[in-house]
Amino acid sequence: MNRQIVLLQRPVGLLSWDDVELIEVPLPELADGEALMETELLGMDATVRSWLSQADGYLPPVEVGDVVRCSGIGRIVATKSPAYEIGDIAYGLPGMQTHAIVLDDLFTSKLEPGTDLAPMLSIYGATGLTAYVGLIDVAKAKAGETVVVSAAAGATGSLVGQIAKNVLGCRVVGIAGSDEKCEFVVEELGFDACINHRGDLAGGLKEHCPKRVDVYFDNVGGPVLDAVLGRLAQGARIALCGAIAVYNEQGKPPGPANYLNLISKRASMTGFIALDFWDRFDEIRSVLKGWVNDGKLRHVEHYFDGLESSVDALNALFTGANTGKVIVRL
Amino acid sequence: MNRQIVLLQRPVGLLSWDDVELIEVPLPELADGEALMETELLGMDATVRSWLSQADGYLPPVEVGDVVRCSGIGRIVATKSPAYEIGDIAYGLPGMQTHAIVLDDLFTSKLEPGTDLAPMLSIYGATGLTAYVGLIDVAKAKAGETVVVSAAAGATGSLVGQIAKNVLGCRVVGIAGSDEKCEFVVEELGFDACINHRGDLAGGLKEHCPKRVDVYFDNVGGPVLDAVLGRLAQGARIALCGAIAVYNEQGKPPGPANYLNLISKRASMTGFIALDFWDRFDEIRSVLKGWVNDGKLRHVEHYFDGLESSVDALNALFTGANTGKVIVRL
Repeated sequence: MNRQIVLLQRPVGLLSWDDVELIEVPLPELADGEALMETELLGMDATVRSWLSQADGYLPPVEVGDVVRCSGIGRIVATKSPAYEIGDIAYGLPGMQTHAIVLDDLFTSKLEPGTDLAPMLSIYGATGLTAYVGLIDVAKAKAGETVVVSAAAGATGSLVGQIAKNVLGCRVVGIAGSDEKCEFVVEELGFDACINHRGDLAGGLKEHCPKRVDVYFDNVGGPVLDAVLGRLAQGARIALCGAIAVYNEQGKPPGPANYLNLISKRASMTGFIALDFWDRFDEIRSVLKGWVNDGKLRHVEHYFDGLESSVDALNALFTGANTGKVIVRL
Repeated sequence: MNRQIVLLQRPVGLLSWDDVELIEVPLPELADGEALMETELLGMDATVRSWLSQADGYLPPVEVGDVVRCSGIGRIVATKSPAYEIGDIAYGLPGMQTHAIVLDDLFTSKLEPGTDLAPMLSIYGATGLTAYVGLIDVAKAKAGETVVVSAAAGATGSLVGQIAKNVLGCRVVGIAGSDEKCEFVVEELGFDACINHRGDLAGGLKEHCPKRVDVYFDNVGGPVLDAVLGRLAQGARIALCGAIAVYNEQGKPPGPANYLNLISKRASMTGFIALDFWDRFDEIRSVLKGWVNDGKLRHVEHYFDGLESSVDALNALFTGANTGKVIVRL
């Protein structure tokens, strides 16, 4: 049997068990070209929540009745595809279920035997790609600049800050939601400073960014984005990665009133989707591996256990319960 | 005597005669390196209003007691500068006064005898430079794309739309504040369409931008910016030139809630100041002259008469009373 978490209704606010249910269905019959993956790990990303809303996103929304889409890794247990043999490890978008059909397509790739699996969902997955391209290709951070990153203790933010600090040679200031997380990114990851946004964010930015902010990697949107817009340096670049602060809001929260500073600071705010850089993923992954091997990057995973923990695991991204990449072990 | 309009207090909302007064003072004594210009034409720009607020802009704010800063053209009537002879025509930032000291600096340049003066304050001045660099260098508009420009009947917007349509080969949709202005930019300037933003703006954008908006040249900010953010094409570029809608607001009006679309549309919003392109001004001016000579660009001036008309002239930019460049004739 296949155990699946399917969407019952579009959530308002945090996802709850009123919005999804865990069902059992027979394993699917395979058609030619398909293989069946037994999932072992699921990766939680803020974007999973956005797919549950009826919004105009970069992938179509998850429809009511469908399995909740998310990334994951598993083993091939049946195959009618020339691309997969039984026992192969595959990485893709299986969704919240114990078994998923995989195709030989853009969204699935095979992993070498012996691969350490969890990092494939974090630093060597879309998370690492997002951190790399957002910081380097979109925001074009350079040595000596001041880089600010929000959700600094999260999967993406923790990588962004370490790349900026340990590879590029920037001054790096994190923004996080608790003193513990701030301590973690400064003490454990080597950030120059970190500001708890539940305190005096504007004051913290003034104190820790004396030369203002050259690059802001925005994971949260909302009032944090607005505060950083109030502290931009000339020629600043903001990479818009996501908006954790607003994905669960009803209606549209107010936009950033300080966007007007983009004019006087000749600054830019650019949205990006890591998927657009998919063709460079292999190249970027090997660069990231080199940095990990050189001791410049640490990756941190935060585990939840069992398919039924997926709702809590996803919500952790928004309540701030996690440090590092949230992964569900099946 | 020199007649000057000086700032008494920072205006709230539109500029009024409670905020400024017209005074007479003796003509200044010239120091070495200075010349005296008798102003003939003053150019009104939305940015003049922004300089009257205590904001963190690209030039320092006008202080209480100072002459209100604006661009202008005049004749040299006295000189202790090797750069100017009596009778020379100079172009710069004299401010709202009949006589101004000019230096041989970035902000002042000499004009050839016989130059048609008013266009030097519009198409061949900062207005033309702004339209050119915002559309071509910042927004990178390309043939076949849909370009939307707000304040379409204004000095900058009317040039942006004509360059996009007649030079670059874009589909051009204006946004203006009255049906008369919309008719003007479509019938007289050749825009493909124009939407009166006092009507159904979102509906108009849907109707007239069937392939969505690739480039938006924003002169107004506020709800118009937000509406266009709701209609972006993939990879759209927004050039932020100014924010007529908010310069007169007290406090901070809400930011554009639809900025989140920048992410799913991989779009960017970039502020710019035409002054940054000053070193290319001569080159760009001659390109613009070529387009005027080829019949591809029309420039339109809207005159007010007398120094005492300056307050009304400036406010016309915000009340929508003008079509084309607002110029005060002294």
